Amino acid sequence: MSESTQAWVEADLIISGAGELLTCARVSSALGARSTLGAIPGGAVAAYDGRVVWTGSAEALPEEVRLVRGGQNVDADGRVVMPGLVECHAHLAFAGDRADEFQLRVAGATYQEIAAAGGGIMSTVHATRAASDEMLRALTRRRLDHFLRYGVTTVEAKSGYGLSQEQELRLLEVYRDVAAAHAVDVVPTLLAAHAVPVEYSDRPDDYVKMIVKKMIPAAAKHKLAKFCDAFCEKGAFTPEQCRQVLEAGSEHGLLPKLHADQLSYTGGAELAAELGAVSADHLDHVSEAGVAALAASGANKRLPVAVLLPGATFFLGEGGHAPARRLLDAGARVALSTDLNPGSSPTQNLWLMATMGGSQLRMTAEEVIRAITIEAAAALAVDDEVGSLEVGKKADILILEETRTSEIPYRYGMNPVWRVYKDGRLVVKRDLAGEM
Amino acid sequence: MSESTQAWVEADLIISGAGELLTCARVSSALGARSTLGAIPGGAVAAYDGRVVWTGSAEALPEEVRLVRGGQNVDADGRVVMPGLVECHAHLAFAGDRADEFQLRVAGATYQEIAAAGGGIMSTVHATRAASDEMLRALTRRRLDHFLRYGVTTVEAKSGYGLSQEQELRLLEVYRDVAAAHAVDVVPTLLAAHAVPVEYSDRPDDYVKMIVKKMIPAAAKHKLAKFCDAFCEKGAFTPEQCRQVLEAGSEHGLLPKLHADQLSYTGGAELAAELGAVSADHLDHVSEAGVAALAASGANKRLPVAVLLPGATFFLGEGGHAPARRLLDAGARVALSTDLNPGSSPTQNLWLMATMGGSQLRMTAEEVIRAITIEAAAALAVDDEVGSLEVGKKADILILEETRTSEIPYRYGMNPVWRVYKDGRLVVKRDLAGEM
Repeated sequence: MSESTQAWVEADLIISGAGELLTCARVSSALGARSTLGAIPGGAVAAYDGRVVWTGSAEALPEEVRLVRGGQNVDADGRVVMPGLVECHAHLAFAGDRADEFQLRVAGATYQEIAAAGGGIMSTVHATRAASDEMLRALTRRRLDHFLRYGVTTVEAKSGYGLSQEQELRLLEVYRDVAAAHAVDVVPTLLAAHAVPVEYSDRPDDYVKMIVKKMIPAAAKHKLAKFCDAFCEKGAFTPEQCRQVLEAGSEHGLLPKLHADQLSYTGGAELAAELGAVSADHLDHVSEAGVAALAASGANKRLPVAVLLPGATFFLGEGGHAPARRLLDAGARVALSTDLNPGSSPTQNLWLMATMGGSQLRMTAEEVIRAITIEAAAALAVDDEVGSLEVGKKADILILEETRTSEIPYRYGMNPVWRVYKDGRLVVKRDLAGEM
Repeated sequence: MSESTQAWVEADLIISGAGELLTCARVSSALGARSTLGAIPGGAVAAYDGRVVWTGSAEALPEEVRLVRGGQNVDADGRVVMPGLVECHAHLAFAGDRADEFQLRVAGATYQEIAAAGGGIMSTVHATRAASDEMLRALTRRRLDHFLRYGVTTVEAKSGYGLSQEQELRLLEVYRDVAAAHAVDVVPTLLAAHAVPVEYSDRPDDYVKMIVKKMIPAAAKHKLAKFCDAFCEKGAFTPEQCRQVLEAGSEHGLLPKLHADQLSYTGGAELAAELGAVSADHLDHVSEAGVAALAASGANKRLPVAVLLPGATFFLGEGGHAPARRLLDAGARVALSTDLNPGSSPTQNLWLMATMGGSQLRMTAEEVIRAITIEAAAALAVDDEVGSLEVGKKADILILEETRTSEIPYRYGMNPVWRVYKDGRLVVKRDLAGEM
């Protein structure tokens, strides 16, 4: 049989016997956000050399796929098989914690009051600047280990706790160095415009100028970041300052992202859409005009993905979740993320965000699962590589303890992962028995 | 040296080097709920034959405790050491799940609408009745395994998905049989008054009469339950029906508990106090009179402990958390629980309830930690045996990954457990490395 007419593919990994195989493949539709999970009951997935080479039904498997000598044949035994999760908004490298600040908030102080008193992001900046490179690498590595254990195979990593050229670039270098030796894929983001550092407190525009003139060019020159992000908020940066930062980023090839309308309405969503940002994140206080500005993102890939972070809303405890239902019903693409950071969301359990997507945001099981896979990948502009199980994409594959799609957002606050394969290689194996 | 003047104690387990040792010992106070955690920085705990024999500071340890030959000396290496958690409100034995019902609620149906349509508790009753004894034992065992992995060493186990004499007693027998061979201590509760079974739908008083005349006497005779509980709610049982059930329970030596004011106000808290219930559970819709009725429970052990279940409120997604702050400020004792059940709270992560205690209920770190240890033990009337590390109590001890008290409610949605000792024996050993 000549290769051109060969009806089967070679695989070095076959996972079969899925209760449901969720490919999360994009389905063309006028309302992209409503498309399905590409669920195949009893499905199977095959990979070769770290890439997906085949997905389909168990019946077609013996005809269409051949396992190479030494390849692995895994029986999912009725479990859900799905793509590795994508964490699309994470503040990964920081030192210290803000556990005592949480107690201040329990006692009634607001996030913004604490920040105005020199706590908040600034306290993490102090601790992070004081930490050695070695410590920051160790902390980052450990957080990647945790994410991987929870089934996350691609993670965004924002800077933002350095707030000087030297310190911001140092954080991005930590990501580069740790990522080089870790299974998880790391997507670095320059978030120099996270807060105005103390040294610039009376002249924030000079800090913005420094970001624009020095930090962005340096990060771009050394290829240390894929994205440029900014925190558009009262007490952080104005829409005009954010525009300057993101436009400068774009000029240097850094794709724009924006922290928009989190604690108050600033017109962030509209600005993100206008600037062609890849994502507009938070949106707890988005306006109707902001919803409208993101509404067509299901059909138009040039519009921002709405990245919602219900964990931050939950942990801040002030209520007022983002209007996920309105965004979805208007046709926007919606991703979910932990927002891992030491102030407003110290968690790495992305599955819990899927549950909050249901219980707090009224998203369906299909919507929340897409929101932590393919839509999250779109929010990092890596949806051609990860976020779904499709031929040619990375073989980042989870096998869960659950057997049905609807169980994924249902059992909450725990870890449903049974196995994680990264680039076709087994990297996490969890068992109750394994913990005695 | 004669034994009577011996200044030291023998131990077969010493855990030293704690960042903080939290004894959670009760401190006499007019406001019991405000008492401290008995934290000892750098503290140590010693046990012999499964019981705590000593707690104190590291300096006193060499003088006052001697390790017997073959005993274990464990270095906590700066971690928090604390009592095993007590889960005081759990519906443990059931078959099936209600993941699809969660999707109906996401789409807008209320918990009570689903129940009225024959879903809700009734769907779990159907699945549970149909399950074999062997299946129910396996499911129960697995849930106990999960709780233990999350640091829970004592668990309440309610019946309530049988709703006939034969089936309710069968569930209690499952608890008896599984508990006999499991490390976790199980405290069984007869909750025959959980829902009116279909066979009695047009004559609920006859079902109550059957509970009173047959089920309670049988459960008591065979020593299958410590507590008798009832669901006081529109669509379930009236206050008068609950009174009949709990009074009959008391006559047969079953201590009263009550599901009170969860979905609507029924006067449940007041009823629980009047009946001398050991706990009044849920309280999302408690009245000011109800708060007042529980207010003195910090000082008066005959008044019910308020058991709050923020996970159910969270998962039902209708808002309206219990007024924990008002209860605590009024002097009530407050415990927290997962409310593990397939309808309104499918989780076994009691640590997440501690975080909700902070972010949603405005309880301090000390209050939430007491609420999942000593106050939860009080809600099960086992606070003379577990819930704190005090001489003579069970050596149920956790070593956490965290190093400070305030970190416990802070990092959320994950599992902080590093080691679990039950009756002085190592039963859970967790490591990132252990999962590859």
